Amino acid sequence: MINAYAVSKPGGTLAPFEYDPGELGVSEVELDVLYSGVCHTDLGMIDNDWGFSQYPLVPGHEIVGRITGIGDNVSGLEIGQVVGLGFHAGYCLACEECDRGDHNLCAGARPIMAGRHGGFADKVRADAASLVPIPSDIDLASAGPLFCAGVTVFNPFLQFAIKPSDTVAIVGIGGLGHLALQVANAWGCEVTAFTSSEQKMKEAHSLGAHHTLNSLDPEQIATAAGQFDLIISTVDVALDWRVYLQTLKPRGRLHFVGASSAALDVTPLDLMGTQLSVSGSMIGSPATMTKMLQFSQRHNIKPVVEMCYFDEINEAIAKLRSGKVYYRLVLQHR
Amino acid sequence: MINAYAVSKPGGTLAPFEYDPGELGVSEVELDVLYSGVCHTDLGMIDNDWGFSQYPLVPGHEIVGRITGIGDNVSGLEIGQVVGLGFHAGYCLACEECDRGDHNLCAGARPIMAGRHGGFADKVRADAASLVPIPSDIDLASAGPLFCAGVTVFNPFLQFAIKPSDTVAIVGIGGLGHLALQVANAWGCEVTAFTSSEQKMKEAHSLGAHHTLNSLDPEQIATAAGQFDLIISTVDVALDWRVYLQTLKPRGRLHFVGASSAALDVTPLDLMGTQLSVSGSMIGSPATMTKMLQFSQRHNIKPVVEMCYFDEINEAIAKLRSGKVYYRLVLQHR
Repeated sequence: MINAYAVSKPGGTLAPFEYDPGELGVSEVELDVLYSGVCHTDLGMIDNDWGFSQYPLVPGHEIVGRITGIGDNVSGLEIGQVVGLGFHAGYCLACEECDRGDHNLCAGARPIMAGRHGGFADKVRADAASLVPIPSDIDLASAGPLFCAGVTVFNPFLQFAIKPSDTVAIVGIGGLGHLALQVANAWGCEVTAFTSSEQKMKEAHSLGAHHTLNSLDPEQIATAAGQFDLIISTVDVALDWRVYLQTLKPRGRLHFVGASSAALDVTPLDLMGTQLSVSGSMIGSPATMTKMLQFSQRHNIKPVVEMCYFDEINEAIAKLRSGKVYYRLVLQHR
Repeated sequence: MINAYAVSKPGGTLAPFEYDPGELGVSEVELDVLYSGVCHTDLGMIDNDWGFSQYPLVPGHEIVGRITGIGDNVSGLEIGQVVGLGFHAGYCLACEECDRGDHNLCAGARPIMAGRHGGFADKVRADAASLVPIPSDIDLASAGPLFCAGVTVFNPFLQFAIKPSDTVAIVGIGGLGHLALQVANAWGCEVTAFTSSEQKMKEAHSLGAHHTLNSLDPEQIATAAGQFDLIISTVDVALDWRVYLQTLKPRGRLHFVGASSAALDVTPLDLMGTQLSVSGSMIGSPATMTKMLQFSQRHNIKPVVEMCYFDEINEAIAKLRSGKVYYRLVLQHR
């Protein structure tokens, strides 16, 4: 049996929940959960924001675990190995995207929180293909958020072949943004942080920003006209994106990793004159996670986390809802 | 003196207009105009759609001409040479964009129709850097539109490194679209034409389309779900772009070359799941024009043109305004 925390209805509180995972699948692996990050996506799943939540629902998709069971068809992993597990717990392994190593773009990718149960538990299971071994000198207690927030902000640098000579801006300095600043700085870029918080402006410098600008002040933003090759927005609210477009260099890109469903007030003519792109992405593939871990290790990129105990999960969720977390929450066992 | 056709006020008719171009600048070249295409951008300039028209205004920016005068500092061009001249008649030649050969993205690029006079004339002048020699076996009478419409649709294939194994859709089969179909087919791609005209559906096949779909029929569009690596929109009206986004493969791009100022009804979430990009561009650099001419020559890409005489210019403009041109208009001398 697996001892987990589950919600039984949309927006509900988490309560102890025991379930029988059945026989281990031939392509599956079972982990002892060591640490489990708490992310806004967990709130969205708890609240059924995207309409595909099923209850009882065990959240948790930023998991650091130790392998305790291996299915008969699994190779390349071994009992006792420490691995990371993110939003997806399985892929079709048969489509063009899986074939080329872009598993996160697989139409059949299976979220861990839908159809199976997540990491707010003592154990968790996932398909072997979704697990990523963690190098031995990565700090395990803070590693969980790398498998969702970390890979989400790392992925665009790889996908769009960002160069160390590029200038990069990060909009929003929170759970995603504080990692994006570290990645952008380590990537060798000149880095600007956009935030409306005075405190975060100060912290942004220690996280890797060379410059800071007020994200809500059009006059300050205008001083950056034509400066950026890449802007990564980590916020989930609508800003005046046409003003931000004007801070891009020719061929620049405004890239969204913050899940906003507000229409972009942008026209084709806004993009045409200087050949701009607007784009978005979510998380990244296992191959990208592996590269991200190697890069994080080499450059000492590390989520800034607050630790909570698993039995404080409802307090942790409340704190995350209030927006008071600096910068990520991670659950640990007592 | 140069004998031209000019409008004297926004939306006016063209009338004979003689002007003295002064002494030839040291970096300038003077051409006898052999042919001059007529483009929607000429209508926009005549009508002052973009607010920077100055009158009297001589339109014409798809020019085939023979060099008759060369400034003292010009090298690499010679009297008698046949060259093409597009929207830009000069560049700063000092910025990062000029340095890297992306002159069309130079913030100081000078449109031929603003600050100097265009190609609806017996002669025209431009900075040498904006002229592109035309290979000897390109048909001169139909070549003019290559320097605006042609390079506009060719440019994205080069900029975004489109591969012959990619699938490409062209939205709108008009002056731009009929060239885009030819380029996409010659590039080696599988090509789909989106149009709402039954006649153009037939013609699209002879221009290079392998498939056609009704651009206004959501059910037909839905049959192409997940099919395209690149969609190039040549239309200047708002379509249901969220429906079109669903026809893109993961990592696909919806690219605008049609000058629409209608806000895109697209959200970050629409782009994030499959890492989509939305982008735009205008024309291309002289280096891209040279590549486009070589490619057009090798693959027999040719604008389909209706020829008019220069003294029929007002009839030609009226025909273009009515949307009845198949597919480009070119002015010639009697």
